Amino acid sequence: MDKNNFAKTPPMGWNSYDYYDTCVNEAQVKANADYMAAHLKNFGWEYVVVDIQWYANGAGSMRDRFQYIPFDDLEMDRYGRLQPAPARFPSSAGGRGFGPLAEYVHSLGLKFGIHIMRGIPRRAAQEHCPVLGTDTTANLVADPSSVCPWNPDMYGVYDTQEGQAYYDSLLSMYAQWGVDFIKCDDICDSRLYRELPFNGWAETRMLHRAIEKCGRPIVLSLSPGPAHIDRAWEYADCANMWRITDDFWDKWELLKAMFWRCELWQDHVKKGCFPDCDMLPLGYLGKGFGEERFTNFTKEEQKTMMTLWCMFRSPLMVGAELTRMDEWTLSLLTNTDLLALLKESCHGVQLVRTQEYAVWKSRDEESASLYVALFNLGEEEAEISVKLADLDEKLSAFPTHRLFDLWDKTETQTTSPVISAAVPAHGVKAYKIQD
Amino acid sequence: MDKNNFAKTPPMGWNSYDYYDTCVNEAQVKANADYMAAHLKNFGWEYVVVDIQWYANGAGSMRDRFQYIPFDDLEMDRYGRLQPAPARFPSSAGGRGFGPLAEYVHSLGLKFGIHIMRGIPRRAAQEHCPVLGTDTTANLVADPSSVCPWNPDMYGVYDTQEGQAYYDSLLSMYAQWGVDFIKCDDICDSRLYRELPFNGWAETRMLHRAIEKCGRPIVLSLSPGPAHIDRAWEYADCANMWRITDDFWDKWELLKAMFWRCELWQDHVKKGCFPDCDMLPLGYLGKGFGEERFTNFTKEEQKTMMTLWCMFRSPLMVGAELTRMDEWTLSLLTNTDLLALLKESCHGVQLVRTQEYAVWKSRDEESASLYVALFNLGEEEAEISVKLADLDEKLSAFPTHRLFDLWDKTETQTTSPVISAAVPAHGVKAYKIQD
Amino acid sequence: MDKNNFAKTPPMGWNSYDYYDTCVNEAQVKANADYMAAHLKNFGWEYVVVDIQWYANGAGSMRDRFQYIPFDDLEMDRYGRLQPAPARFPSSAGGRGFGPLAEYVHSLGLKFGIHIMRGIPRRAAQEHCPVLGTDTTANLVADPSSVCPWNPDMYGVYDTQEGQAYYDSLLSMYAQWGVDFIKCDDICDSRLYRELPFNGWAETRMLHRAIEKCGRPIVLSLSPGPAHIDRAWEYADCANMWRITDDFWDKWELLKAMFWRCELWQDHVKKGCFPDCDMLPLGYLGKGFGEERFTNFTKEEQKTMMTLWCMFRSPLMVGAELTRMDEWTLSLLTNTDLLALLKESCHGVQLVRTQEYAVWKSRDEESASLYVALFNLGEEEAEISVKLADLDEKLSAFPTHRLFDLWDKTETQTTSPVISAAVPAHGVKAYKIQD
Amino acid sequence: MDKNNFAKTPPMGWNSYDYYDTCVNEAQVKANADYMAAHLKNFGWEYVVVDIQWYANGAGSMRDRFQYIPFDDLEMDRYGRLQPAPARFPSSAGGRGFGPLAEYVHSLGLKFGIHIMRGIPRRAAQEHCPVLGTDTTANLVADPSSVCPWNPDMYGVYDTQEGQAYYDSLLSMYAQWGVDFIKCDDICDSRLYRELPFNGWAETRMLHRAIEKCGRPIVLSLSPGPAHIDRAWEYADCANMWRITDDFWDKWELLKAMFWRCELWQDHVKKGCFPDCDMLPLGYLGKGFGEERFTNFTKEEQKTMMTLWCMFRSPLMVGAELTRMDEWTLSLLTNTDLLALLKESCHGVQLVRTQEYAVWKSRDEESASLYVALFNLGEEEAEISVKLADLDEKLSAFPTHRLFDLWDKTETQTTSPVISAAVPAHGVKAYKIQD
Repeated sequence: MDKNNFAKTPPMGWNSYDYYDTCVNEAQVKANADYMAAHLKNFGWEYVVVDIQWYANGAGSMRDRFQYIPFDDLEMDRYGRLQPAPARFPSSAGGRGFGPLAEYVHSLGLKFGIHIMRGIPRRAAQEHCPVLGTDTTANLVADPSSVCPWNPDMYGVYDTQEGQAYYDSLLSMYAQWGVDFIKCDDICDSRLYRELPFNGWAETRMLHRAIEKCGRPIVLSLSPGPAHIDRAWEYADCANMWRITDDFWDKWELLKAMFWRCELWQDHVKKGCFPDCDMLPLGYLGKGFGEERFTNFTKEEQKTMMTLWCMFRSPLMVGAELTRMDEWTLSLLTNTDLLALLKESCHGVQLVRTQEYAVWKSRDEESASLYVALFNLGEEEAEISVKLADLDEKLSAFPTHRLFDLWDKTETQTTSPVISAAVPAHGVKAYKIQD
Repeated sequence: MDKNNFAKTPPMGWNSYDYYDTCVNEAQVKANADYMAAHLKNFGWEYVVVDIQWYANGAGSMRDRFQYIPFDDLEMDRYGRLQPAPARFPSSAGGRGFGPLAEYVHSLGLKFGIHIMRGIPRRAAQEHCPVLGTDTTANLVADPSSVCPWNPDMYGVYDTQEGQAYYDSLLSMYAQWGVDFIKCDDICDSRLYRELPFNGWAETRMLHRAIEKCGRPIVLSLSPGPAHIDRAWEYADCANMWRITDDFWDKWELLKAMFWRCELWQDHVKKGCFPDCDMLPLGYLGKGFGEERFTNFTKEEQKTMMTLWCMFRSPLMVGAELTRMDEWTLSLLTNTDLLALLKESCHGVQLVRTQEYAVWKSRDEESASLYVALFNLGEEEAEISVKLADLDEKLSAFPTHRLFDLWDKTETQTTSPVISAAVPAHGVKAYKIQD
Repeated sequence: MDKNNFAKTPPMGWNSYDYYDTCVNEAQVKANADYMAAHLKNFGWEYVVVDIQWYANGAGSMRDRFQYIPFDDLEMDRYGRLQPAPARFPSSAGGRGFGPLAEYVHSLGLKFGIHIMRGIPRRAAQEHCPVLGTDTTANLVADPSSVCPWNPDMYGVYDTQEGQAYYDSLLSMYAQWGVDFIKCDDICDSRLYRELPFNGWAETRMLHRAIEKCGRPIVLSLSPGPAHIDRAWEYADCANMWRITDDFWDKWELLKAMFWRCELWQDHVKKGCFPDCDMLPLGYLGKGFGEERFTNFTKEEQKTMMTLWCMFRSPLMVGAELTRMDEWTLSLLTNTDLLALLKESCHGVQLVRTQEYAVWKSRDEESASLYVALFNLGEEEAEISVKLADLDEKLSAFPTHRLFDLWDKTETQTTSPVISAAVPAHGVKAYKIQD
Repeated sequence: MDKNNFAKTPPMGWNSYDYYDTCVNEAQVKANADYMAAHLKNFGWEYVVVDIQWYANGAGSMRDRFQYIPFDDLEMDRYGRLQPAPARFPSSAGGRGFGPLAEYVHSLGLKFGIHIMRGIPRRAAQEHCPVLGTDTTANLVADPSSVCPWNPDMYGVYDTQEGQAYYDSLLSMYAQWGVDFIKCDDICDSRLYRELPFNGWAETRMLHRAIEKCGRPIVLSLSPGPAHIDRAWEYADCANMWRITDDFWDKWELLKAMFWRCELWQDHVKKGCFPDCDMLPLGYLGKGFGEERFTNFTKEEQKTMMTLWCMFRSPLMVGAELTRMDEWTLSLLTNTDLLALLKESCHGVQLVRTQEYAVWKSRDEESASLYVALFNLGEEEAEISVKLADLDEKLSAFPTHRLFDLWDKTETQTTSPVISAAVPAHGVKAYKIQD
């Protein structure tokens, strides 16, 4: 098994976090999956991902004081493996875990994903749960000094044969459930252990090994960011995606900062290896956080985000509640001219970036198509331009070109050696260039 | 209550750690207390301190793998307060805790101390123990991300009213037991939280408040070091002693480094406020660690250590197993001429320090006595000298002085304006200067 | 020579910087000295200090672009020693340097001080000036990689015999001029070399040695701050004052922050050793900076500053142009009841400090007087109080006390065990307590 | 001009530093160029680079005390531009600079390069030299606080229009001389300014702009390393090569560490953009350093080095004195099978790296050839293997392969799905794989 074949292009899907926080339930997951199958599947969207604390029976019940209630009732099997909270995921009854839900999602022609926290439940360690298939117990594989700074559920797992056995038992169960995608948290960066050795590095490799052993091509996604650029090779060796940013939300300053992050990571986008710009906070968001809203991004900002994510070839995970989809948001998610940039044969690079603007180009090696995006990062409308010669030396040899606007779907013919456009503040103009 | 009156001079006593590691028992504590009462009490030694994990029923049973067994059986009352392991401390039966042992120690005319770890037991948090005298439970006062990097027993406690209530309930129990001295660990420095906020700073203040409320003058000692010099005022405001070094053992490089530490902290030694050079690894050591031995320090090094600790006015806590006391070690602990330097009226300062030697002086404001110590930090015997004028301007006015050697007990008369001596490698010459 | 005898109490004087920047001239220095002799000398003020770039012929001529003009014309003797700019200091003509001006200041019964930059002039290095009394030249004692981050005049000097010879030649000249006080800059802290070895540490010692050799008791003051608390012993070993803060100006936030700095350094105030809170920005300020003004501090803030500096026993260096002295400012500088706190027998300590208030006490060991200051650090008037028992255990034994207000000069009698006062925002109430 | 066309493949050449230190002269440069033209040119070697301090008249004359004599006599024109030292480079007489030497090198069909230090001569600043083509003078473009920690010759240049003008004047002169390659030092990393803003970042861009303006395709190489991975895009935007390591010499630990550096930078090797492993310390080295020697590397280590540099596509700059070339070294430099890996169509990637071994592969997109290198990083001979499937999925479909050994020039046929070889300690086996 070569993990780079699990996801040859950036994974596209839906994630429950941005709308539901820790509280999504089975019916809601199914409803979103139904919508995806009906309206988005044909455009390449396929992953349905249940985010954090699906195992927490009390999730959301003390939301004024805690996002994650410490030492609360976590659903767990006798081997210290977390299980779906039965009240929220009724089909998990009888020890079937996420099997039935995964089956449902598969029946729609989609793939099923879950969020997990790095490590083993603290409760398992305290209760000395046996580790499946071994003589050891959870208290001996848990590292009591390896904790997550923001979530109280787990301990890190020692990098030992017994620790590996725990991860193996976990992946074996996930494979049996039919899980296609794992987003592992508290593993890509830790604010707590920045200086001291961080066990997450070893656990990344343990997870990778466990996936290889389980026999199922499970995509591995690492969170939270920012990922460490000096560990780029190791992420690529073990995982399919890794977050290059802390949690991304609908704020312009975060979107603007993503241009710097994409600059930093652009050379590390490869088959099966995708630096991850995080979820797309589009449409309806925030219900579980007590601040339900339509995205704060303006339409121009949303186009900027979609264009950058596609040029850079980030995974695309929609945060919107899909059942409340509107026309505009749907148009963003189904812009096939833009989504074409995610193809394996495409490769995007930044040409220039200042405080005021950025220019990216992408070339599709297969079709030999050339794309360019002019981003206005400033607070005023501005004329942004790029020389054809800077896009491609050969281009300048041809006197006439057609520019197809990826958003407006208009085509213009030009003989100018410069592509130039008036771009609104925070906005973008993106073209496919044709001879 | 003014905590600076609890210990006006540096506390002197015995601590179980250096010999017993986590495994001391009641009979052993008593035997050491008996020895102290019989042979050391008259020289100022008074504290008998039970060090780490007296509450761990399995302590020492997996010594090849763990010094502190994770998630093991800790003796605890229903309010989440740790209790002496009954097999090791039989007198604690029936919920009497350390009360009977403290009483025994008091009956010898001595004082009783215990080691504690910062925070609340992880087990208490997991089991939602009630916090005595409140409506709250341990899971809500424990900070799940505040852990000790080397011991798995506790979580830090939030700096809230409820958190304070936990510490109050603890100190109230200790006061009832008759505890005179608390050495709190994982609170003075943390390798884990060096950059991020370290909860230990707040817990120091919470402990101080709890002591003030409990009504008993309990000496507060903070560990481990190195203490942070920029927090000197806060240590002094809340505690009686704070470790200026990581664990100190019988190695010359650690002893040599202590000269730098004493230089750094010398201006912070005051009534009730004692920067702490850690235990004296003298006599028989290391049984609990599986390497029982007579101290590795040479006799010269032992004299150097005793002289520095006394000049600087560090607390003196013997690590030796007292029941195996020998003549030589006893002579170190009963050198009244040296111990006189610990008086409240004495004040020691460094005059010079290089890689090769150091000179300290101390003045007793009460008796107007002047002391000087010439330390040889190098690897060869060396002549070390100091001008009388650098010790005291007025001294040089008197033509003749008598030098009383604090170790050899010899007296010489001199008219030289310079005190000079051939000092062996790693050794010291210390004098009381008399007109 | 014992440098701790050069200034047994905190030096008091006037410094040209706050009003004149780099541009003071001889007449102005004399006028300020005259004022001091006539109006301040009797209250303990004695140093007249010429601050930075008295050697720069072009000082101030490009003030819109540079505070310190790079590579400009610096007055220098043939041995690479900077000389007063003759146009500004006419009496220096004929190679007499600051001799005549020092003589004038001495004739008034005052002392004369100068500012210097650490190191040797870059021009001297470039021109290979001989180092007086040696065979070497400036290019071989200058360390080309040791520079000041904000002033372009000098290179650091290597810690070699030749380097020492340069400093010796410098101090020998200053002694001949009659200099009593040197404020050396770029030596106490460097933003440039925080991580890498900073040559200033060695040069501090070189300066100290050179002073000892020159035979004149020249007070050594180190700048800029913040001084490094872990080097406290070394400052005290070599210097008389060291700045515990970066440049201090008439802004409340800087004054409030000084309470933290004084807390940090309070145990390091000793005979001949004075952590330095920097100049007092009182009266008329800022002419050389192009923003001449009366101090921005309110009267309450000025009293707070004066009280803290005196309690802490900081050196007192007035920044005001003395010839424009007003009644109010003069009253601050001549409050003998407050200035009494600077006596060698006094020792101030902080009792408590929060974001809202601070309490200091000071005891005069000689007269057994006790002082207390209640500082309001908040933005509203507040009642601040302290228990007599916290000031002195014995005090509470006496039922009646008289409180003499150090600012209002009123006396009240009280039988309360608590001293309490309504203190205006940013203000202070300070009392002498008498039986 | 697109700087990525200046050097489409990794530059190959000779550099004077490893043998001559600061002391190479014209005859020696010519002799090395002659050798290159005669023996190496046909294999792709083309750059002849004169390294550091060709402008220093006294270079080497105080080698026991200084590598770079501070404030010594630097040859400079009236515009503050350094010139070749005439005694060493006689053809530079009459203001012709390196023109004649460049012409000579060009006449051999080779290219000419020089080393420069970032900035403007300190002497020019002190002497207020005019900046060519402007009204300003050197003292106003030099940043007096921007210095190199190890070389005393220059100041950094302010990022202003005037500063740019200085760099423009410099490049205009270099273009006129016929310079093809500039290795700029003190610009890629600075130990001095790691934390504080480092002017080198701005000067990199200024140099790039000046090259674009000068009209000559001058390759830009940045030193010293280690380059900062988070600035990868900026190096690639402005330069052709940047050092990913501090100075590299003939020590195994440095060579072993290079595997980690190549792992880190492998994704950043692109047309015109070459992370640089530094010079190849082969053959005769060290004369100018007073330790002339044949390289300390064993033959196995030399093959390891050549193979890694070629797989990674580092620039190749020989440090050997070419006129003393031996058979063995020549064979390393003329191994066409290995040098083929430098082609624009090749791309090398690391497959695995441990403390004991590393495996790299490279694919030539043009010829579809596949290469693999098995490196033994351990201290014992070891069997190292790689699965064909890990090199290329398709490969495993073909039952039989031929392995051409790039060093032994032997060919073996195999049907095994694994390539395996016994590799000597510190050694390598490298193959071209053919169907």
